[in-house]
Amino acid sequence: MTLTLSELAEKIGAVVVGDGAAAVSSIQTLEEAGAGQVSFLANPKYEKLLATTRAAGVIAPKSTRSDRVTLLRCDDPYYAFMQTVVLLHGYRRHPHAGVHPQAHVDSSAVVGAGTVVYPGAFIGPRARIGRDCIIYPNAVVYDDCVLGDRVTLHAGAVIGVDGFGYATHGGVHHKIPQVGIVELQDDVEIGANSTVQRATLGKTVVGAGTKIDDLAIIGHGATIGPGGLIVSLSGVAGSTTIGHHLIMGGQAGVAGHLNLGNHVTIAAKAGVMNDAPDGAVLYGAPATAAPHGKKNVTLGALLPELVERIRKLEKRLGERLEEK
Amino acid sequence: MTLTLSELAEKIGAVVVGDGAAAVSSIQTLEEAGAGQVSFLANPKYEKLLATTRAAGVIAPKSTRSDRVTLLRCDDPYYAFMQTVVLLHGYRRHPHAGVHPQAHVDSSAVVGAGTVVYPGAFIGPRARIGRDCIIYPNAVVYDDCVLGDRVTLHAGAVIGVDGFGYATHGGVHHKIPQVGIVELQDDVEIGANSTVQRATLGKTVVGAGTKIDDLAIIGHGATIGPGGLIVSLSGVAGSTTIGHHLIMGGQAGVAGHLNLGNHVTIAAKAGVMNDAPDGAVLYGAPATAAPHGKKNVTLGALLPELVERIRKLEKRLGERLEEK
Amino acid sequence: MTLTLSELAEKIGAVVVGDGAAAVSSIQTLEEAGAGQVSFLANPKYEKLLATTRAAGVIAPKSTRSDRVTLLRCDDPYYAFMQTVVLLHGYRRHPHAGVHPQAHVDSSAVVGAGTVVYPGAFIGPRARIGRDCIIYPNAVVYDDCVLGDRVTLHAGAVIGVDGFGYATHGGVHHKIPQVGIVELQDDVEIGANSTVQRATLGKTVVGAGTKIDDLAIIGHGATIGPGGLIVSLSGVAGSTTIGHHLIMGGQAGVAGHLNLGNHVTIAAKAGVMNDAPDGAVLYGAPATAAPHGKKNVTLGALLPELVERIRKLEKRLGERLEEK
Repeated sequence: MTLTLSELAEKIGAVVVGDGAAAVSSIQTLEEAGAGQVSFLANPKYEKLLATTRAAGVIAPKSTRSDRVTLLRCDDPYYAFMQTVVLLHGYRRHPHAGVHPQAHVDSSAVVGAGTVVYPGAFIGPRARIGRDCIIYPNAVVYDDCVLGDRVTLHAGAVIGVDGFGYATHGGVHHKIPQVGIVELQDDVEIGANSTVQRATLGKTVVGAGTKIDDLAIIGHGATIGPGGLIVSLSGVAGSTTIGHHLIMGGQAGVAGHLNLGNHVTIAAKAGVMNDAPDGAVLYGAPATAAPHGKKNVTLGALLPELVERIRKLEKRLGERLEEK
Repeated sequence: MTLTLSELAEKIGAVVVGDGAAAVSSIQTLEEAGAGQVSFLANPKYEKLLATTRAAGVIAPKSTRSDRVTLLRCDDPYYAFMQTVVLLHGYRRHPHAGVHPQAHVDSSAVVGAGTVVYPGAFIGPRARIGRDCIIYPNAVVYDDCVLGDRVTLHAGAVIGVDGFGYATHGGVHHKIPQVGIVELQDDVEIGANSTVQRATLGKTVVGAGTKIDDLAIIGHGATIGPGGLIVSLSGVAGSTTIGHHLIMGGQAGVAGHLNLGNHVTIAAKAGVMNDAPDGAVLYGAPATAAPHGKKNVTLGALLPELVERIRKLEKRLGERLEEK
Repeated sequence: MTLTLSELAEKIGAVVVGDGAAAVSSIQTLEEAGAGQVSFLANPKYEKLLATTRAAGVIAPKSTRSDRVTLLRCDDPYYAFMQTVVLLHGYRRHPHAGVHPQAHVDSSAVVGAGTVVYPGAFIGPRARIGRDCIIYPNAVVYDDCVLGDRVTLHAGAVIGVDGFGYATHGGVHHKIPQVGIVELQDDVEIGANSTVQRATLGKTVVGAGTKIDDLAIIGHGATIGPGGLIVSLSGVAGSTTIGHHLIMGGQAGVAGHLNLGNHVTIAAKAGVMNDAPDGAVLYGAPATAAPHGKKNVTLGALLPELVERIRKLEKRLGERLEEK
């Protein structure tokens, strides 16, 4: 689609500062944008690029000023950026509709209207997939799992694999049948090659609108509330319950059988070993709450200096004792 | 299957304390269980739920007491729980037998009797799969690899991919053909999207009865002994040899070319950089043995306090020196 | 192929010390090698095995001596080892040529001559795959992505999955269409189940000759220069730019929106949070440069001792104050 900057501003709720007549048909970064392209400024780190960008206009925070480029000022430039990408580029157009003949959907499974199933995807017995879902190539849904509407499984994602549950007896690990299921609620998106394990009993739940990046794992019987964001290479162990609006950085982990509140933030690489209340911000492994936890992680870098300071103290105290 | 609590107790070697007449046909957690359901208590953390559970009976340790619910007391309640799940629910019933037509088994590969190969699975040239294995959708076995009997590969698991081996010469990474294989011994289970790399020469071995969770990697030429448990997002680097009954927590790593003994335990997120003897318990990155290693990890959380204590010492010592 | 040790030495640029007449037809480790096999010594850790190996000859560094086994001395024994594996064993012979009928290549995609596409692989709309590539089973290339020549995708690798990009507004994560692509340049190799995310705008680039191990992720809009090595379970977050000849250990991470120079080395498990210049060697999480960073990581293991030393200082100082 092609729009003038003024037309675009109206659609995204922005105010034009400068000339709004230029037409744009795509969006690009400040560095790469050229004629016919709009750009955006959401991360202050890139503000200096306003001085050099060749974009026709720039979506920017309300406080931004420029004497050389047209600004589309708004309250939430990242949200306006998203709206603009949708307007000018739109979402992926799938190469086929419905279930592709090279996919495998068990005859007892139910796939809702408008759902696209790509080649190589597998939907197991009695699984129920809602409406308008996208199941990318080679994603797998084991038996009996339930996906809501508008759920996206990226390539290679595995939903409902057996939880890692064994009873060890006499040195032998006896497999515990994992008779529970996985429930992915509406608008969940699961990244490539991520896995969500079925519960031993009952269900593993990923709440509505939660987004999981690539190569992450949700353990058996865990419950992740709605509105969460889980970055890649992270893991939530079994039977842990987490409230809504979790933010979990990359390569972070949460141990099993814990309770975490709502709006919890877990820093990248943190290892959470204890329950945490609403709003907790957790750093380090084992994780502790900010500000202590953050300091703690940062102070790790001070260790060589601390050792030196202790050495000096010991030396001075030793000398004083000898003086005595 | 439906059993009375007394019948169930007899089958799992438990002693009924209370009324054993109630019939149960499924098992459920203490919180979720209702009429017609048995539950279990294996983690002391959940003992308080005995006061509120609506289960018809509870499998529990010998020392447990309750004045309101029938107990099935036994030595190893988690093992009894496993037995009960098998009795009442059983293992997954596969939607087809043998090799599914949407799988790809090379004409030179051998697949044992009773083995189920799901759609999208790939068994490469000359690979040999034993009896009664389960190869879930989109799992891949590269050429020449050998799987014993009763091996399970979950969806997307990759066995025998090339080891990460290059000879760097003049800034160019020259690929070393990986001419070895992978051997998965009897009763091994590999989680979804995990990978086991073929050896450069010889073989990578996963010993009998070892269970690997999702998203883990065993490097080329490594040997993992029998009876191990490896949790998700962990990695064992190439040419490392580990004895039997390894326990490896999530997001842990072991460097290459090491020797670890039998019954070694590696804590979640640990990074093992050195050889370790039988029975070692390793914490931290770089990992050190418990109790030191465990203390070390825990003390990490004390850093802000330690800095404060050093500051005070410096201040007091400085003042005393000035007084002088 | 069978060669005498002398013939082999000539081909790999080595000098025979001892009898070069023995014929060898395969290569094996020092421990496992027997008659008719050549071996190699590249890691000094294994030098003592020269005293017991039954290999017919050993490729070794120039300084090596042995009074019992023929040596093939050379400047770079690991490179000579690679050459020998190629000579005696060669690379994998694929079971078919071209695109296998059980693969799915979109009708608008372009696949170069000599490229092998295994069963279950998916090549999306308008994707362009160069010449002599190998796309192993169940690897996935999303729409519009571009692969150079001689690119290898191992089983389950996913190229061009949507970047993890959402605009959060009123507690809802709105998906940003990821309209960019992935470009894998010539001679890139991607390990099993690794993922490279397509850029939001523009492209994610993996430079020529860069090799990525299994279960790693390159985030959307990142640029990895040529000649890099990235070990398994590592992640590079979005919009980060890294120069050529990166070396990244296992389970390491790099945050988003950073600039790292050429020849940067990141230790296993490190977490890079800041820009780094050419040649930086980074340890720890958050990572700091060696030697400080390395010390810091090592000193972590000293924490129990440091606490003890602080306690003693406090005690001695306290006593002295009381004495006063």
